[in-house]
Amino acid sequence: MISADESAPNHDDSRAPLPASTRVYLQGSMHPSVRVPMREIALQDTSSISGEVTKNDPVRVYDCSGPWGDPAFTGTVEQGLPALRRDWIMARGDVEEYDGRKVQPQDNGYLTEKHAEFASQAEKGNRLTEFPGLTADRRKPLRSTGKPVTQLHYARQGIITPEMEFIAIRENMRRAEIADLRDDILRNDLEKQHAGSTQLHDSPYTPGIFQRFPQRIPKEITPEFVRDEIAAGRAIIPNNINHPESEPMIIGRNFLVKINANIGNSAVASSIEEEVEKMRWATKWGADTVMDLSTGKNIHATREWILRNSPVPIGTVPIYQALEKVNGKAEDLTWELFRDTLIEQAEQGVDYFTIHAGVLLRFVPMTAARMTGIVSRGGSIMAKWCLSHHKENFLYTHWDEICDICAAYDVAFSIGDGLRPGSVADANDKAQFGELEVQGELTTRAWEKGCQVMNEGPGHVPMHMIEENMAKQLEWCHEAPFYTLGPLTTDIAPGYDHITSGIGAAMIGWYGCAMLCYVTPKEHLGLPNKDDVREGVITYKLAAHAADLAKGHPGAQYRDNALSKARFEFRWEDQFNLGLDPDKARSFHDETLPQEGAKTAHFCSMCGPHFCSMKISEDVRQFAKQQGISEQEALEKGMEEKSKEFVEKGAEVYQKA
Amino acid sequence: MISADESAPNHDDSRAPLPASTRVYLQGSMHPSVRVPMREIALQDTSSISGEVTKNDPVRVYDCSGPWGDPAFTGTVEQGLPALRRDWIMARGDVEEYDGRKVQPQDNGYLTEKHAEFASQAEKGNRLTEFPGLTADRRKPLRSTGKPVTQLHYARQGIITPEMEFIAIRENMRRAEIADLRDDILRNDLEKQHAGSTQLHDSPYTPGIFQRFPQRIPKEITPEFVRDEIAAGRAIIPNNINHPESEPMIIGRNFLVKINANIGNSAVASSIEEEVEKMRWATKWGADTVMDLSTGKNIHATREWILRNSPVPIGTVPIYQALEKVNGKAEDLTWELFRDTLIEQAEQGVDYFTIHAGVLLRFVPMTAARMTGIVSRGGSIMAKWCLSHHKENFLYTHWDEICDICAAYDVAFSIGDGLRPGSVADANDKAQFGELEVQGELTTRAWEKGCQVMNEGPGHVPMHMIEENMAKQLEWCHEAPFYTLGPLTTDIAPGYDHITSGIGAAMIGWYGCAMLCYVTPKEHLGLPNKDDVREGVITYKLAAHAADLAKGHPGAQYRDNALSKARFEFRWEDQFNLGLDPDKARSFHDETLPQEGAKTAHFCSMCGPHFCSMKISEDVRQFAKQQGISEQEALEKGMEEKSKEFVEKGAEVYQKA
Repeated sequence: MISADESAPNHDDSRAPLPASTRVYLQGSMHPSVRVPMREIALQDTSSISGEVTKNDPVRVYDCSGPWGDPAFTGTVEQGLPALRRDWIMARGDVEEYDGRKVQPQDNGYLTEKHAEFASQAEKGNRLTEFPGLTADRRKPLRSTGKPVTQLHYARQGIITPEMEFIAIRENMRRAEIADLRDDILRNDLEKQHAGSTQLHDSPYTPGIFQRFPQRIPKEITPEFVRDEIAAGRAIIPNNINHPESEPMIIGRNFLVKINANIGNSAVASSIEEEVEKMRWATKWGADTVMDLSTGKNIHATREWILRNSPVPIGTVPIYQALEKVNGKAEDLTWELFRDTLIEQAEQGVDYFTIHAGVLLRFVPMTAARMTGIVSRGGSIMAKWCLSHHKENFLYTHWDEICDICAAYDVAFSIGDGLRPGSVADANDKAQFGELEVQGELTTRAWEKGCQVMNEGPGHVPMHMIEENMAKQLEWCHEAPFYTLGPLTTDIAPGYDHITSGIGAAMIGWYGCAMLCYVTPKEHLGLPNKDDVREGVITYKLAAHAADLAKGHPGAQYRDNALSKARFEFRWEDQFNLGLDPDKARSFHDETLPQEGAKTAHFCSMCGPHFCSMKISEDVRQFAKQQGISEQEALEKGMEEKSKEFVEKGAEVYQKA
Repeated sequence: MISADESAPNHDDSRAPLPASTRVYLQGSMHPSVRVPMREIALQDTSSISGEVTKNDPVRVYDCSGPWGDPAFTGTVEQGLPALRRDWIMARGDVEEYDGRKVQPQDNGYLTEKHAEFASQAEKGNRLTEFPGLTADRRKPLRSTGKPVTQLHYARQGIITPEMEFIAIRENMRRAEIADLRDDILRNDLEKQHAGSTQLHDSPYTPGIFQRFPQRIPKEITPEFVRDEIAAGRAIIPNNINHPESEPMIIGRNFLVKINANIGNSAVASSIEEEVEKMRWATKWGADTVMDLSTGKNIHATREWILRNSPVPIGTVPIYQALEKVNGKAEDLTWELFRDTLIEQAEQGVDYFTIHAGVLLRFVPMTAARMTGIVSRGGSIMAKWCLSHHKENFLYTHWDEICDICAAYDVAFSIGDGLRPGSVADANDKAQFGELEVQGELTTRAWEKGCQVMNEGPGHVPMHMIEENMAKQLEWCHEAPFYTLGPLTTDIAPGYDHITSGIGAAMIGWYGCAMLCYVTPKEHLGLPNKDDVREGVITYKLAAHAADLAKGHPGAQYRDNALSKARFEFRWEDQFNLGLDPDKARSFHDETLPQEGAKTAHFCSMCGPHFCSMKISEDVRQFAKQQGISEQEALEKGMEEKSKEFVEKGAEVYQKA
């Protein structure tokens, strides 16, 4: 266990363990090679005022950081991560190694090998351009020998893959933990959880969407439940067979809400190391997937570095790289070039592709009267292409071929929303919903090809119009997982769009959105730095968790309960450590009360040492105990009876006054 | 007009004007002495790609900063603000000046005058302890000569006070502005607004609460509408006759959602100047009211400084000061001491009192089994008192007398929620809702006495349980305004509780909560500094605005539209200046692209200079124009017809493939 003090100087290090945390692994039973990583947070003992000491069991939390979060792991970014899933993939006997596509200078934005070398020389010493494993010990890519090699395909055949068992354990962890608690009373306390919307269909306060599209979150997430949801298309496991380093995770509305963090070397700033570090940094704080949205030079090399080092699925928007290959001229894009780019990325191991195949020619003019036109990069590239050629979007016309490629590598689809609104004024308009309907058609067709599919959604939407987005997506896209950017609920707070969008994200997550694409404070203004990435990730983790509570995911409230209990008992260190960002919580506390003693004191800076409402609550409990009433009973009888006379007396006093 | 550069060095100065802003005043017509302040943001011209230049009208926004936000105002904090409302109050002929209560050393936490002097000497030079106006030129306090002097009382008699007209203009400002726009097309564009929940009762996506408790937001806010809402008890104007410096503002669910910022010198930290500056700082960024939650020494003096300098209503929790007077021993509190404290604060000009009269003895034991007991300071003080004496809460038993005091000064009630949940586990429990029902009874009784009332609410509530809070409050408290703290939607993010609570605040604001009490990033951890206050205020302004959009407040979307239009047209300065925090937006932009030229460039750091989706959207518009189709028509015909053949052609290509 790493103590708070040891980790304190390394706040900015993506490999520094979070305080009081150890890495534990839970083993699979169907597939013993399954080892699911979790972070276990050790807690202090509870000391009551009367001097009684109670042990508090550690709390296990979902951990996205992969081997980088395991102090026992000694690998380096130059070596990349171990190929965790390689054996599972090979054991299925449906893939083959092959020579693969030769990397072209153009993949990295260079005209010829000479240009690339020259650039490489010029930048020597301060920049890595090629992942060492690429030349030295490159794995040959894998592809299907014929049938789809997708989790959907296996699920439909009733096969529970190691990936599915991994996920069942991962999603279910808190329940297992609760069952193991040594203290009955403590377990009762921490197990408390409000019924979520999933369980409350008859409540007048449950939004209508749950009547039409019930969530089906069971009390226990079993491997069979995972399989069933995958088979039905309601969930996906993005895991390209060429990204065996990734740890299985699931995206679907009957599971924990996930978040994505975008990284990417824009043409204006940032380097490869920065991007790799951003990925590791984002997963440290809880990014469930990462999208590499790089543009400009070295796209291929950057992606290789990221993939070889990423424990989470990596998504891309392949049209970005294709556009670089034609020097930014959208009209020069061709299906052949795009197809080649898909193969390039599928061989590298990209886990999901955003493809803007729903931006049809007929929708483009609908955007002319908008407040903010087309704001999606991919959407505008395809709109420009359609207009220039006066032809239908080639992503749409070649959809079946695209599906065949994705089925051969298990690249999941994230069908893009190229016409998403870029302002609240444009929310839920004809162009946006027109594309959403086409996304539904594309979903069905991809399913027929055995591909895993989710759909991307907006964007900028006022609060009262969010539910409609979710409902239409579920209806038109047949309950495929939804993956939205925010949405931002107002446009008037640049610099705070992680919050304007965090509001919308939490709400749509509750309504059923399966994954939330993060927004950083720099949105609309500049490129996020490490602080922004952390701020964005934590904001979205808390939004996703708020949604899990509202949905009623089994055990979701456990961590809230543990933290609240620590707060009530003045276990300051535990309060920090159980939070999503222990470092920030600790530093905020220490700004006002830097003395070490303040972290064991039974008071805080808000009220000072002489008065404390928490203390008074403790008195209330003691009083209830003195009266011989258990805390549970106090609610119903005893004290209440006793109080009545005083209420009546009190009322009498009032009458006289 | 102050340019961005001139204001840049003064970011931390609460008096530095926001960039490109001038103060304007709109005059009343019923009451010509009414001058409503607004901030007018000047915009740059729009230059289209074809070289056309269009002027953009300035945008007026609600401004809480009072005279401090008017560069023409030359007063100082030692002088205090002018008594704006004095003449209106005197003209009603229902108040008298009187000698008032003599300030006691105990009011500031000192045993005797000697102790106070000694402390004052010891702190000389680095600390102001007494507002100069107090001794030199103190106004005598005013009180009623008999009847209630409340806005509720006037409203019931059909009187439209200057305060009410002031508010009508203030709430309505954007509509007036829109009507004045010189350019028809621009007006059409900026006037665009989605129907809000107020207008959408039949939508399947409108929460049930709007069926049971319709919001009644008219297209125009008239003085008569203000009067009617006040008379019905659905809105309040907190404006003590002894705080004539305050600018009238309204709290009610058929008006703009308001926010409150808490300040206060806790026993552990901060000084009087800091608190006055925090108040001014909070109102600069948009706090509609400020609560002074000071404890410890110098409470009376601190409050005097704040009141004499505050353009917004000031709220307090009088029991905090009463507790100081008995050295923190809750059991030593008496009705007489509390009554004296109420008079003291009413004479100073406190605009609303939080009074925890709903914490009844019979509810106290219900909190024993909670995860986090009683977390409200006021609630725990009263719980302790009740338990110690085994008597009913004296605030409850003396409610009518308290009402009589408030009616004589027009101090509004903010009936406290002393048993609000301190963790999601405790949300919506028997203790909380028990107290809420009593709040309803107290509301009715206060109304009978002519007092203005709002009710305080939670706290910590998961998203799916928020609507129930709002619905029960409307039902049990007869549609009196609701005023909530957040609520926080999860407990697991200390350091980010402005966000966990901003989510809940936006949602409950949409459902009908009239005022949102801000939460800063330091919540649960420490005392907020200036940055935290700004972060908290802006977070709550954006949450309140998101709620205004969802409710469909007239003209609410105007600022979003203006900002989005600026964004789309690469008017960077306008995009910053129209935001809630221009300074932060500008500094975030400049981190990536510090060159001045980048702020006029038609690109940004996200995509770089070679590709821009906004640019492509402009191409789409130009293309639509070339085809002889207006942007409006493009939606319906022309291009769409033209596109169809290509869609069919495209589909054909697909069939063959």
